[in-house]
Formats: sequence, structure tokens, C-alpha cells
Amino acid sequence: MVYSTVGATKIMETRIHPSLRTVEWKDNTVVMVDQTKLPNELVYVKYTDYKDVAEAIRNLVVRGAPAIGVSGAFGLALAALGSKASGMEDFLKDMEQARKILFETRPTAVNLAWGLERIMNVARMGKDPVETRKKVIEEAKKMAEEDIEINMRMGKNGSQLFSDNDTIMTHCNAGALATVAYGTALGVIRATKESGKKIRVIATETRPVMQGSRLTAFELKHDGIDVSLIPDTAVGYSMANGLVSKVIVGADRILRTGHVYNKIGTYQVALMAKQHGIPFYVAAPLSTFDMKSTPKDVVIEQRKASEVTGVAGRKTAPDDINVINPAFDMTPPELIAGIITEAGVARPPFEESIKKLFGQGP
Amino acid sequence: MVYSTVGATKIMETRIHPSLRTVEWKDNTVVMVDQTKLPNELVYVKYTDYKDVAEAIRNLVVRGAPAIGVSGAFGLALAALGSKASGMEDFLKDMEQARKILFETRPTAVNLAWGLERIMNVARMGKDPVETRKKVIEEAKKMAEEDIEINMRMGKNGSQLFSDNDTIMTHCNAGALATVAYGTALGVIRATKESGKKIRVIATETRPVMQGSRLTAFELKHDGIDVSLIPDTAVGYSMANGLVSKVIVGADRILRTGHVYNKIGTYQVALMAKQHGIPFYVAAPLSTFDMKSTPKDVVIEQRKASEVTGVAGRKTAPDDINVINPAFDMTPPELIAGIITEAGVARPPFEESIKKLFGQGP
Repeated sequence: MVYSTVGATKIMETRIHPSLRTVEWKDNTVVMVDQTKLPNELVYVKYTDYKDVAEAIRNLVVRGAPAIGVSGAFGLALAALGSKASGMEDFLKDMEQARKILFETRPTAVNLAWGLERIMNVARMGKDPVETRKKVIEEAKKMAEEDIEINMRMGKNGSQLFSDNDTIMTHCNAGALATVAYGTALGVIRATKESGKKIRVIATETRPVMQGSRLTAFELKHDGIDVSLIPDTAVGYSMANGLVSKVIVGADRILRTGHVYNKIGTYQVALMAKQHGIPFYVAAPLSTFDMKSTPKDVVIEQRKASEVTGVAGRKTAPDDINVINPAFDMTPPELIAGIITEAGVARPPFEESIKKLFGQGP
Repeated sequence: MVYSTVGATKIMETRIHPSLRTVEWKDNTVVMVDQTKLPNELVYVKYTDYKDVAEAIRNLVVRGAPAIGVSGAFGLALAALGSKASGMEDFLKDMEQARKILFETRPTAVNLAWGLERIMNVARMGKDPVETRKKVIEEAKKMAEEDIEINMRMGKNGSQLFSDNDTIMTHCNAGALATVAYGTALGVIRATKESGKKIRVIATETRPVMQGSRLTAFELKHDGIDVSLIPDTAVGYSMANGLVSKVIVGADRILRTGHVYNKIGTYQVALMAKQHGIPFYVAAPLSTFDMKSTPKDVVIEQRKASEVTGVAGRKTAPDDINVINPAFDMTPPELIAGIITEAGVARPPFEESIKKLFGQGP
């Protein structure tokens, strides 16, 4: 069930792109990077039962909305393979049971529901189990490839905004490890480097969960991209001392007005960038846009206190202390220089430019 | 050598103020809170040999510039007590040896040199060892009392700037634990509460060394002051959501122009406070002012990478990652609403108001 790092690295070298492959379908199994082991070990885990995939999603072996969506689809592909049904009615019963178990792992993640539904639609249109199994597997593999393609298109669009010798600050992990591969914000950084420009990256550690230290620093170093880690307290210092040319982050939700919801701390990085005249960019696929809500509709999730009162199992604060621990914050459109998507780059005023991305413009 | 928490708490209850007493002279011994054990245990350690006091300063059992200055003085008082010299020449030789050992523990801390020098001046003026021993001990005790008095005067001056029902944000630890007792920024918070105003405090955890979680949250909770802890990434969120009325921090160095050097992260808190129309105050004794230097003279200390790549002995980042880890940053005067000292509150323009505090004004 566990690959050695050496074996896994060998697999990687045959890929279309050398960034980490967070999740993939390989010889009728699902192979994932175990993100709970990072940055100390790069371990790949292999699953043959959809119930183990559900457990992996629940336990954050895999995280990041796009990666979870595809993992759910692969889980259903395993369920299709494992079903012993000889008729379509029994086959769909097995699939529905698997869908339910996979969905309940992270019920609030929009991409998971989307990924499962797309596979179920294929299953429901099937005529016999043998043929449908094949179609389900093909669809899940297609979804993984599409995720990478979208990221690479986004990367190409975004790379034009960055210059030779730029030092790019990023917050949290909008990387290969949050998607199937390549990443959104880090995909743009990869594409910029691939276009021949020399770049350096400054990654904030991103307390409380430290996705910057554990994941971004890890995956950029893995790809040979020059990366320096800073505590979140050193953002202002770095900008005031001329160490930052541009900023790029991912997004969890973008409103039609250009309000961006992303990891806690994003807003203050954007505010400081504005103060120092540093362009602040957001990279996210069109599936991240919520064209219906306004800022007053968006509820910001408060997470458990233990994320702040300790690190990696060590207590760093007194017992029973009050904690304010919001998971996300909101960056208003006036702090954003551009929003990079697979369909192009939206520029202010965002209300118009976002409409154009969706083909609703004048 | 180690007091139980219960016994130590009993000692505290007889004090002039119930805040923690970081360092004190008691029955010819030096008693300190062991800050390396916080926040998990409140342990008092007792020293009878100046070499152990030197070790305590080196190992951060005691930290914070004012606290280190007085600890050095108490170390010399122990050296005076321990000296077997019958003549002044031998006595001064013993004292000089102790001074050197104590000084070398933290050679860059201005207050340590100042504290040691003040005691050596008393020793050098002595006529015989027996009488000089007494004078040295009296001087060291006086220095400790003066530190508390200065903090309490600063607290009284500062408390007038805060209102009933204020929520006050603070960064790092400018508290009882950085001084002999009462604190500078946290002294102002204590004085505000003592003046009958209802207040709440938001403490940033202050990565990388986490003085906010480990020390500020601990000492405010110890004193029964309402405190909430936030990750450094949640400063912007807290301000944007109306959770912060005012900010107060300490300072490591203040220039005559009002440029303030303090713990990394202070600058960005000040910048965000300005953006949100929240007054940002600094509290520091006159001994913190450097009336000679300009910003280009001040070198910012870079600290070791391991502070950022791990927490409490647990690794949180990949091996051999580049790290930028400045200990301090600079907050420019235009972001500061007032500088609170024992001699009064300086208001912008600071070049004039700071001169007045030192009696050099028109």
C-alpha cells in the first residue's frame, strides 16, 4: 500500500510535467501523495477499494477542492470496477451507495459533489455494467486530465504578467498538491519559469495550518524552483525592503464583483501589496466563480481553536484560552490587479471583465 | 532550586501588584519565572550563584530588555555577596570578573550593559567590601523597584487614551514578563483595567517565537484580563470585521524622528490599523529612545532559520529550505498615533514632541 519515495519518483519522471501528481489512476488503482506525511516524507499510497479513498479524503491524505473532486470521481471508478452486479439496476445501486459514502467525507466541498455527479451521470446512461465500467473509468481519467489542462492554460495566461527576475510572493498552497497536478497560482509560477524567465518565490508559512511551509515550500523545492520561506509576520518587512515584485494567490470563491475569498491572511497580504505598489494577482479556474452571491451572503467558516493553540501536536498557548480562528478572509476588488483564469485574465473593473470571461460581455 | 507553583503564587499575593514578578531579590537569592517552561508550567527558579544567573540570561529563562538589565544587576549583587575578598582591590577584581561573564550572555542588549554599569559604579565608589556589598544589593533592588514605578507611571499616562469597552490588539509580549513586573504595553492595559474601564485584548501569536501565545496570553489570563488569541494571519480579518478599537505594542528602539523598531510583524499591524482608522500606540520607557541614530544606521538582526522551519521541536518545513527571518521591523512615524512614556505621551509631529519629553523642547 505504500510506495517507496524512490519508486514513486521514478514514476514521476515519465509524466507530461514533472510537478507532483497529487492523484492519478494507474493500472486500475488510485495512487495519491499522502499529504499528511509532508514535508517530512514523500509517500505515495495506492487504493483498490473506494471506501479507502473515502477515508483518504476524510483524513486529508488529499485536500484542495480540485484534487478532492477528481479523487471522488476515481473513488466511483473503483466502485464500478468492484461491483459484481450483472444487471444495470444492481450496478447503479452499488454506485449510489459508493457515491453517498464518498460524498459524506467532506459534504461542504462543492467540487466533490460536482465530480461525483459527473460520474453518476455517465453511469446512469449506461446500457450494461461491463461497458459502463469502462466509460466510468474513462470519464474519471478525463476529468483528471482536464484539471491539468485547465491549470496549464491558466499558467500560460498568467505567465505573461510576470517578468524576468521577478520575486513572486505567494500565500497558502494553490499548487500541484491542491489540484491533480501543476496547480493554479503555483501553476502560473511554473509556467513563468518554463517560459524562460528567471524567477524566485517567497512563500509565507500560512499559520495556523502551515500549508506554505509544509506544502508550497515542499513542492517548489521538489521542482527546483528557488523558494524562500518567511513567517507571516515578515510580509510587511519583505515588501518595505524591496524583496517582492508581485504577489499571486489562489482562491476558494470569487464573486461576480471580484471579491475574493481565500485562506486567512490573504487580505492583509493584498492590503500591504497595494500600499507598496506591488501588483496582487489571483489565479483560479472558472469553476471557482460564484456568480450569484454578494459579500453579505458568504459565511466565513470558524475552525477549531486547537489549530492555533498548538503546532504539530505541541501545545504553544495556555489551556482554555479564547481563540479567533477564521479559515478564510475576503479581499475586496480594489486591491486586485488581475484575476487569471483558463479563459483569460480579468482586469478591473471586474464586474465587466468577469462577465466577459463567461461570454456574457458586450 | 524549583518552587512549586502553589508556593510561588502565595509569594505573589503579598506584592504591590498582582501581575507576575519576573525577577526579584528575596532573602539574598534571585528568584525568576522560568519563561522557557511557559505556558505549560509556571515555575519559579532560585539562584544563589551569579554564574547561574548568567546561564539563565543566556538560556532565555529571563528575556525582555528591562528584565535582563535588572537580572544582570542582581547577578552582580550575588557576586558581591559571594566574594570572600577582605580588601577593596580583590573585591573589585571579583566584581569585574562577574560583570564580564554576565555581560557576555547577551552582548547586544543595551539594557544589560546599562544595568551592570550602574552597579559597577556603586562598587567602585565603595570604601570597604562589607559596606559596599550592602550598597550594591540596595542599588540592584532600587533598580527593580524603579522599573516597576516607570511602568506604572507609563500605564497611568497611557490609560487615558483608552475607553470603556475598548478591544485592544497587542503584538508580541511587552508585558510583566519582559520587565520586572507590570509591563510596558501590557502595563498600560493593566492600568486601563484598574481605572475601572472594561476592556478586552486580542493577542497575535507572534510567529516565529510565539511570545503572544506563550507569554502575553499566559500573563493576561493569569491576571484575569479577557484575552483572545489569533494567528498573525487574522489581523486584517479582525480589523476589517470591526473587532479592534485600538492597538498597543512595546518597542525595542525608538529614534528621535519617531521611527519605532519592534518585533517582526509590528509594521504590518500598524499599516493595517492606519487603513482601518484604528489608533496605533507604542509604550516604552525613555531608556528605549536612541536620540543619535537615523533609520539607515539601524541594522536589523536576522535570526536562525530553525525558528521558522519548526515549532517546539517539531519540523514544519522541508530540510534545507531558504528562510528570511528578521527579528525586528521598522514602523514609520506616520502610522503611529502616540508614544506613551513615563514622562508623558508624545504625539505627532514626533520630532518635536519627543524632544519635549526629554526636556529639550521650546
